[in-house]
Amino acid sequence: MAYFRPEIEAMTGYVPGEQPAEAEVVKLNTNENPYRCSPAVARAIEDALGRGLARYPHPMAENFRRQAAEVLGIEPDWILCGNGSDDLLTIVTRALVGPGQRLRLPYPSYILYKTLAELQGARAEEVRFRPDWTLDEGFFAGGNDPRLVFLANPNSPSGTVIPPDAVLDIARRLPCPLLVDEAYVDFAEMNCLDLVAQCDKILVSRSLSKSYALAGLRFGYLVAQPHMIEQFTKVKDSYNCDTLAAAGAAAALADRAWLAENRAKILATRGRLAEAMRGLGFHVAPSQANFVWCTRGDRPVRPLYEGLKRQGVLVRYMNYPGWGDGLRISVGTDDQIDRCLKLLAEML
Amino acid sequence: MAYFRPEIEAMTGYVPGEQPAEAEVVKLNTNENPYRCSPAVARAIEDALGRGLARYPHPMAENFRRQAAEVLGIEPDWILCGNGSDDLLTIVTRALVGPGQRLRLPYPSYILYKTLAELQGARAEEVRFRPDWTLDEGFFAGGNDPRLVFLANPNSPSGTVIPPDAVLDIARRLPCPLLVDEAYVDFAEMNCLDLVAQCDKILVSRSLSKSYALAGLRFGYLVAQPHMIEQFTKVKDSYNCDTLAAAGAAAALADRAWLAENRAKILATRGRLAEAMRGLGFHVAPSQANFVWCTRGDRPVRPLYEGLKRQGVLVRYMNYPGWGDGLRISVGTDDQIDRCLKLLAEML
Repeated sequence: MAYFRPEIEAMTGYVPGEQPAEAEVVKLNTNENPYRCSPAVARAIEDALGRGLARYPHPMAENFRRQAAEVLGIEPDWILCGNGSDDLLTIVTRALVGPGQRLRLPYPSYILYKTLAELQGARAEEVRFRPDWTLDEGFFAGGNDPRLVFLANPNSPSGTVIPPDAVLDIARRLPCPLLVDEAYVDFAEMNCLDLVAQCDKILVSRSLSKSYALAGLRFGYLVAQPHMIEQFTKVKDSYNCDTLAAAGAAAALADRAWLAENRAKILATRGRLAEAMRGLGFHVAPSQANFVWCTRGDRPVRPLYEGLKRQGVLVRYMNYPGWGDGLRISVGTDDQIDRCLKLLAEML
Repeated sequence: MAYFRPEIEAMTGYVPGEQPAEAEVVKLNTNENPYRCSPAVARAIEDALGRGLARYPHPMAENFRRQAAEVLGIEPDWILCGNGSDDLLTIVTRALVGPGQRLRLPYPSYILYKTLAELQGARAEEVRFRPDWTLDEGFFAGGNDPRLVFLANPNSPSGTVIPPDAVLDIARRLPCPLLVDEAYVDFAEMNCLDLVAQCDKILVSRSLSKSYALAGLRFGYLVAQPHMIEQFTKVKDSYNCDTLAAAGAAAALADRAWLAENRAKILATRGRLAEAMRGLGFHVAPSQANFVWCTRGDRPVRPLYEGLKRQGVLVRYMNYPGWGDGLRISVGTDDQIDRCLKLLAEML
């Protein structure tokens, strides 16, 4: 059929991680938080529900913007809310990158970036990380006129970070905006939020899916200078965030004690998981996210993923052409991680 | 700044209808339902909330698809869910229309269609309705290779409909898909759902914002043949519908008695409103939606909109270049409509 744009027909489409229907599966494959969100979230959603849903939400999710501005120490007009941070990545791509133009992304990283380029008919230019997950000059060279550069920081699948001073250096050398995807930043020791005021090319996106245990709610936000937010706003759907999600997300950000406690638990388990995986003979990248990337050269890891899956533990098997494969294991509860480690030990 | 695509810089952006913060305003400007949604919606949302939000939602909102398939008498794979029907209009436009290509739309109609074309760098080709809100041959001519045609049916601002047999005729003559936007169809005497099986070019979009009183929830769906749905799925964000919205929307569709009762109330008030407006000297288009389009040749109507607004009643003033202006008044409660009519009578 000739109805569709050839770019769309040619695409295989982004395949999200498996979402098994069975509740008893130990799900360590899509970096969800193993704990329940702050109880303040449910209360805020119930309150909003009580006020009714017949009216359209605020187009900019102003209640969330005000709350986030207070928590982040910025002004509300530096914030754009999205239906998950994927919505914001889509908006930024559509605003900046035309067909045939270049979108640069590190490799291996979040696979969706390439899909976004394909959807736009743009050219994805993958620049490889060095083996130690740092970036070389190829990433910030301006020669071939990139229109947008994505940088997941912490990165997935590695969990590694590029320090803020290096990010600022990259942005200053680039001729175009640099979107720093901070989906996992609440589990890290650093973030790039302060850089936004220093350089209007730096855009920081955040998600409530991981650190706030709200993947089911679909809420993210972008921080950028107001003149940038103004342009991006033109591209979003008029009412892209629903009333309940905005209310829940605002309440989540306000409960800073919950975040601190959840983070401490995840980091403790992550440390234990990484150490145990090293003990089992894996190479484990130094993660500042809520997952660990585990590789090994002595034997294939895909059978380990398959063996775990057969026994009810789902981790993410990733195979990056030209780079290699590995297991990306989300940090679950201690019990979940113990089960995963025990099964792996039996197979090795 | 040269960061943005020139199309984006040049745009003024779609401006949604005013959403005043004051609760006491009688809001008859954005076609929201004046009644509260089915109580089954709140129960379903509370149940979903009780199950937690830490996990990603089903990528296709499968629970909603199954429920909708049952209500509509089709198979689930004929349905694509969206974050409001605007999300689906965006997805369809991106899938079908490339930069410089033509997107056809009737005029006057939903203003967003033109914005979607602009965002895509496409050429919007506006084809005028006849004065009686029917369409002539220009709308279905295939000569200049349109890639997508939008048809709001019922139309906004008029509330008028093109009968299904005429829609099928249009679709068969067109070389490209025809998106029939049925946002208001639950208030009409007809719909085009059955046509989808007869012609794969026909796509039907629906919204839960109006007839289900769920504008705050952001949920819509598209009905198309499965091979079309498959392509559109590539373009949507992976998790475009959140857990709570999908649960609430499924419950809303299941409560058919609520819909019938709500519809009956809206239609009764609409009839009274239209008759009273005619009595006040307006021309009122024959509406099958939850609003009426009121024009008059003997005096300007903008001062009437302004006068109503000053007195706490917000209706939509629309001025279509080359066509004319009018008031689009959403069907509110009987009390709200009485207040609006009384104020208008005082001004005339």
